[in-house]
Amino acid sequence: MTADVVVAGGGLIGLSTAWRAAQRGLSVTVVDDAAGSGASAAAAGMLAPVTEAGYAEEPLLRLGLASLQRWPGFAADVERASGLPVGLRTAGTLVVGFDDDDVRELDALHAFQRELGLAAERLTPRATRAREPSLTPRVRGGLFVAGDHSVDGRALHAALLVAARAAGVAVVPARVAALLVDGGRAAGVGLAGGGEVPAGAVVLALGAHSAGLPGVPPLPVRPVKGQILRLAGAAGLLEGTVRALVRGRHVYLVPYAGDRLVVGATTEDRGFDATVTAGAVHELLHDAIEVVPGVSELELAETLARWRPGTADNAPLLGPSGLPGLVLATGHHRNGVLLTPVTAEVVTEFLVTGELPALAAPFTADRSAPDPMRSRS
Amino acid sequence: MTADVVVAGGGLIGLSTAWRAAQRGLSVTVVDDAAGSGASAAAAGMLAPVTEAGYAEEPLLRLGLASLQRWPGFAADVERASGLPVGLRTAGTLVVGFDDDDVRELDALHAFQRELGLAAERLTPRATRAREPSLTPRVRGGLFVAGDHSVDGRALHAALLVAARAAGVAVVPARVAALLVDGGRAAGVGLAGGGEVPAGAVVLALGAHSAGLPGVPPLPVRPVKGQILRLAGAAGLLEGTVRALVRGRHVYLVPYAGDRLVVGATTEDRGFDATVTAGAVHELLHDAIEVVPGVSELELAETLARWRPGTADNAPLLGPSGLPGLVLATGHHRNGVLLTPVTAEVVTEFLVTGELPALAAPFTADRSAPDPMRSRS
Repeated sequence: MTADVVVAGGGLIGLSTAWRAAQRGLSVTVVDDAAGSGASAAAAGMLAPVTEAGYAEEPLLRLGLASLQRWPGFAADVERASGLPVGLRTAGTLVVGFDDDDVRELDALHAFQRELGLAAERLTPRATRAREPSLTPRVRGGLFVAGDHSVDGRALHAALLVAARAAGVAVVPARVAALLVDGGRAAGVGLAGGGEVPAGAVVLALGAHSAGLPGVPPLPVRPVKGQILRLAGAAGLLEGTVRALVRGRHVYLVPYAGDRLVVGATTEDRGFDATVTAGAVHELLHDAIEVVPGVSELELAETLARWRPGTADNAPLLGPSGLPGLVLATGHHRNGVLLTPVTAEVVTEFLVTGELPALAAPFTADRSAPDPMRSRS
Repeated sequence: MTADVVVAGGGLIGLSTAWRAAQRGLSVTVVDDAAGSGASAAAAGMLAPVTEAGYAEEPLLRLGLASLQRWPGFAADVERASGLPVGLRTAGTLVVGFDDDDVRELDALHAFQRELGLAAERLTPRATRAREPSLTPRVRGGLFVAGDHSVDGRALHAALLVAARAAGVAVVPARVAALLVDGGRAAGVGLAGGGEVPAGAVVLALGAHSAGLPGVPPLPVRPVKGQILRLAGAAGLLEGTVRALVRGRHVYLVPYAGDRLVVGATTEDRGFDATVTAGAVHELLHDAIEVVPGVSELELAETLARWRPGTADNAPLLGPSGLPGLVLATGHHRNGVLLTPVTAEVVTEFLVTGELPALAAPFTADRSAPDPMRSRS
């Protein structure tokens, strides 16, 4: 029997798309040998387009805001369908700075946010520390964005897996080895170790591994290595996400339900190198301890390295691929968790109707290369 | 059947003693639920009494030198008996300093070593870096001790286990829950979950867990927490052990065959706390990278925390305990690997003959408390 859709990749993007497509009545199979163990396992889960506004092209910012708006409903849907919590945390995000340059960057970000009509509150050092008393007294200023949230990416993945299966999605635990192309059309996927999963359409959601799959047309997706730490014993340390500029370097601290704190992340162009390095762990710990001295006493529970699916303009590739039947849901770079609801929605719409919603139009693979002068980072 | 000897604890001290005792014709049983997973698993394996001379009482230094002298023969015996390598590395130890105070400490250590007739060579910054070219150019001076070596503690443990079994030692995989005392004499051990191992004599080699075992007389052994890192990818980075004074802080880097590098260690009075903390990992990485910048690129392969068996004077407890039949082989603090051969030898001699060799006489449990004015650290 041929499925309507096979989704290559069972991370957050692939699973959520499979789930939504199954809810619309399509028969869907997901293929992944280790679903959720890629970038989804490492993601800090920040839902923070406003605090990221300075680093994104405007169309990507609009997409991020649209997805942020969908998050509460999406989280509630997943929790209802799965019976599992996804750990949505709505305590806002605080950006802090340490020296004159950091404070100037905060001011520039705030000005840019106001220009775009985004809600953000510039805080004195005292007001900054009143909001997060664990911050070092050396903080020079802050910017609070009440609407930038976070979600527990691993809890979300576990819940999506249950929800997808409950909606009838089949999950095949095998590695996708090739795209099957038949008569100039994507016709399914071939599996490592033999076997095929034929389908009417293929959604490519392999994250950093999306380019280079035999049969897939050339795609501008490359691995962008990120190293990240998980600390334990942090109950009560932070109220919400803290993003810091430490003399020009960036570090973020994202608390989770229970006692976890995620500290991230490096951004490295090293191909598929999976090494957790002494230097990266040192820098992340150094900056995190500088921002919140109490981090020093926490348990270093986990260190890991994964690859973001990077693109030339840091924006995702959504919808048609140029090859009939091959649908893109990849290239989310640093924004995979944030963009999960909107990606699932627009890709499902495209699968069901053949039309890509206007919101996603700037993100097709045939978009022109971005004008580098417009980029703010 | 009652064994001649039961050894409580299957770490390096317990296993080596069991092996030597079995070689002398005694029937020996070792009891440990996780042999080699305690301090033996964390030890950096430095055999470095000369570079440690500044931190030990003179009797302990003498014991360390006596054990160092035994190391080549001991290593060869273990390798022959087991067919396994123990990773003895004889490239010497280099102590380096970074600021004026560090250099003064090097000079003081060198003067003390010469006073004791110990071989050590004071080096210029250039000669220091010629010996280990990976050292930062900011090194201000060095002290080279050709006779201070290292051994791979985990390889040694694996080899000792094979050697001991080949010599007829029985290993019971259970946790020692109590000392059995019968008629005012140690008569074996009781096991967690029930059961007993009766024996004519009991060797207490439980490391930091030696005090507080029901039935054991009060012992001045306390856990001294140490956190340590293992890095990978270090092939060719260092020739031998590097110990550094980094503006008053101590860090050591010990290379192993293959590509491993051990970086240690913290010394903390926190009871049996097993937490690997963000602060400790940060400090160790910070100091190691400062000493050898190339460490930054290595893989952080393992972090762990264990407990040294500390005593008031940092020296071991060897031989009679006050309770007939209970023989001590514990309290080795930072020197367990170094003191393994001599401990096995003197404790075995005591088991076989009832006489403790003169070398070990200063280390019986009834020694008087040390004069704190004589300590150099």
